[in-house]
Amino acid sequence: MNIRFYNARIVVPKEENEDKLEVIFGEVWVKKDTIVYVGNGKNSENVCKENDIIIWNREIDVKGNVLIPGFKNAHTHTAMTFLRSYADDVPLQEWLQNHIFPKEALLKEEDAYYLNVLGIMEYLTSGITASFDMYLYPYATAKAAYNTGFRTMITSGLNNFTSSVKEVEEQYLKINEMSDRIKFVPGFHAEYTCSKELLEELSVFSNKYKLPVWTHNSETSLEVKECKERWGMSPTKFFDELGLHEYGGGGYHCIWMDDGDYDIFKKHNMSMITCPASNLKLNDGIAPITTFRKNGIKVGIGTDGPSSNNCLDMFREMFLVSGLANIKDQTANSINAEDVLKMAIKDGADAMGISECNAIAVGKKADIVMIDLNQPNMQPINNIIKNIVYSGSKTNVKMTVVNGEILYEDGQFNIGIDPVEVYEKANSIIREME
Amino acid sequence: MNIRFYNARIVVPKEENEDKLEVIFGEVWVKKDTIVYVGNGKNSENVCKENDIIIWNREIDVKGNVLIPGFKNAHTHTAMTFLRSYADDVPLQEWLQNHIFPKEALLKEEDAYYLNVLGIMEYLTSGITASFDMYLYPYATAKAAYNTGFRTMITSGLNNFTSSVKEVEEQYLKINEMSDRIKFVPGFHAEYTCSKELLEELSVFSNKYKLPVWTHNSETSLEVKECKERWGMSPTKFFDELGLHEYGGGGYHCIWMDDGDYDIFKKHNMSMITCPASNLKLNDGIAPITTFRKNGIKVGIGTDGPSSNNCLDMFREMFLVSGLANIKDQTANSINAEDVLKMAIKDGADAMGISECNAIAVGKKADIVMIDLNQPNMQPINNIIKNIVYSGSKTNVKMTVVNGEILYEDGQFNIGIDPVEVYEKANSIIREME
Repeated sequence: MNIRFYNARIVVPKEENEDKLEVIFGEVWVKKDTIVYVGNGKNSENVCKENDIIIWNREIDVKGNVLIPGFKNAHTHTAMTFLRSYADDVPLQEWLQNHIFPKEALLKEEDAYYLNVLGIMEYLTSGITASFDMYLYPYATAKAAYNTGFRTMITSGLNNFTSSVKEVEEQYLKINEMSDRIKFVPGFHAEYTCSKELLEELSVFSNKYKLPVWTHNSETSLEVKECKERWGMSPTKFFDELGLHEYGGGGYHCIWMDDGDYDIFKKHNMSMITCPASNLKLNDGIAPITTFRKNGIKVGIGTDGPSSNNCLDMFREMFLVSGLANIKDQTANSINAEDVLKMAIKDGADAMGISECNAIAVGKKADIVMIDLNQPNMQPINNIIKNIVYSGSKTNVKMTVVNGEILYEDGQFNIGIDPVEVYEKANSIIREME
Repeated sequence: MNIRFYNARIVVPKEENEDKLEVIFGEVWVKKDTIVYVGNGKNSENVCKENDIIIWNREIDVKGNVLIPGFKNAHTHTAMTFLRSYADDVPLQEWLQNHIFPKEALLKEEDAYYLNVLGIMEYLTSGITASFDMYLYPYATAKAAYNTGFRTMITSGLNNFTSSVKEVEEQYLKINEMSDRIKFVPGFHAEYTCSKELLEELSVFSNKYKLPVWTHNSETSLEVKECKERWGMSPTKFFDELGLHEYGGGGYHCIWMDDGDYDIFKKHNMSMITCPASNLKLNDGIAPITTFRKNGIKVGIGTDGPSSNNCLDMFREMFLVSGLANIKDQTANSINAEDVLKMAIKDGADAMGISECNAIAVGKKADIVMIDLNQPNMQPINNIIKNIVYSGSKTNVKMTVVNGEILYEDGQFNIGIDPVEVYEKANSIIREME
């Protein structure tokens, strides 16, 4: 769509330092899927000249509310919505083996489609415009994003039981052809669910295409202990020796790291994704995000799946990133609000390999969220970025735009399917498994 | 108002064990400020007989959504809204001494009124129907609750600098006369801001009227260390020796406890209020709520003030209570969702001394919240209580009823003042201090 946002507070990268944010007042112009102008509206002649004239589909008075780039949910298993509130209050391994895997064995691809749509709806309510998704049935994930208008980076959850490297290669080739909004990079579930031979095969494939590789890495102390017993080294070192990260990628969770692991992350320009709510809920531990960041390693934020969280809410995650870093580092100022916001947006996007939507700036894809300041949790306006990070809530998400299309506005979805149908499907899917 | 809610899922105490919750389907009838019927609608003859006929002001089709008792925010400093996002990322003592106290010294009583209204608005958006409030200008707190229709239990923040026991006695006598919705019990700020003489005087007063006493207790390790240096004992023991808790009361935060402190809490039937978001943000530590609960001590949940949190959101607090208990106790099942919900409602109400609104049951005050299930974060419906505790959000609060009056519905406030006026006041108050 062609959209003109005016009377807007806009969170943009600072001119002198792209890694810092500032709030300006003015306009954002979107032409089809791309941001073509950001400024005070008075220096927009060049845009008009170049494009002759833009016919606006919508001219939106933002009324002083805030436009931010969409949040990037940098680690999730979206279709696990069917297992929300199904098994809770048990440790990770027991939760996986006794509760999750048996139900997943019953999941059909057509069901996964609707469960993905349900998760995407929740993302939109939380201002999340892209996900980094690892789950069974990547085609269902891709199709749900394609049909709803959502943006997703899919990675394979390769393991000994449910898929093969041949399938991953097919997925890579097919899914990357679908849409600019939908991409695929290889990944595997975890060290403890993959044989060495399988990982060697994946390494050959990923190096052939020069691809980054992603995986769950050092999520629990048990996982690291067992890996060391099996291979005499940490998961990170094991993956490195197998050549899995020659073209980068990274790890999800990364809680129980050895000192040498950080060097490997740096060497391959890898990123880490932290999932604080899931880590708390499953008692995995608190991730050393300060150590990662001090080592110059990019840290994105993920919700993890809706069965281990149980909600998909970047506001909750941002508060937890900040608060848990304080507890971990024994200080009240481990990381400031601006850095947390940057992690939830730019660092996540860059880690995921979708830098085209990492900021509100000319030439970037129009993934934009309108934050409503006219609510009590956003008042007074002492500091907008702190308000968003420490006090923000799904209630403040007034509009979510992905790739220039308004997919969510004032509580209503515009994703081509009736929400009630999605809710009914989700309920019938889990009921039929019982 | 007289309100008939029908087609409702209702969270009620179990008949056989009031400490457990269950979800029933049916109707709730409210006559003026009181719940007069809870059931399936088919056995309501007695209600009709007794009252002849009820003329309904509203008959509300709940459409299968959930009615829960309102949350009780059992520790807060509501009027600190003006300092939201003002000073963050600093340790508690520095935050208090260098940032908060200097601004508070400039605060006027008429300003505190509007700042309280702003906080009450946020409570309503989060399904909070009562607060336990300690702050400067208790008459402003009382007046804000009186005028908006909110319920509050006020306690004095007595200290060496801003008030006296004589004033506390006046407040006690006057505020308890205002309304059934507004009550007052004595309290003092903390051991480190009160002289022994002042606390002795408070003890005489509270024992004369047989009143519970509340205070910030053992929030930081520094506070406990300094108390031990000053008096050779923990804060809890010091207060006990001064006779402050002869009629109960309790402590806010209670993180750094000695073993003997729990016995003192038990002996006087005292309660503790945990404030997990504030404790994380200020790096106070993680409260030992499991130990309190194992000792049979009631634990309520508070947001603390909006300057140390920074939002007033019981959903965030409930998730944190659960997650932080896991980290503290090194398990993934430290406390279950049902117990967390009970803490946020019944245990908080009972601790605060307002058991008249601790449940949806006949004879209780009508403090009721409608939770919207027709949103993606509440689907599928595998377990309603887990959905609320682990996935719930302010977006799910469709209606908040206090004392039989609908104060918030579908994002609109019905509190006798225009929200925009409140926002403008809050901004001008803090701007004028700069």
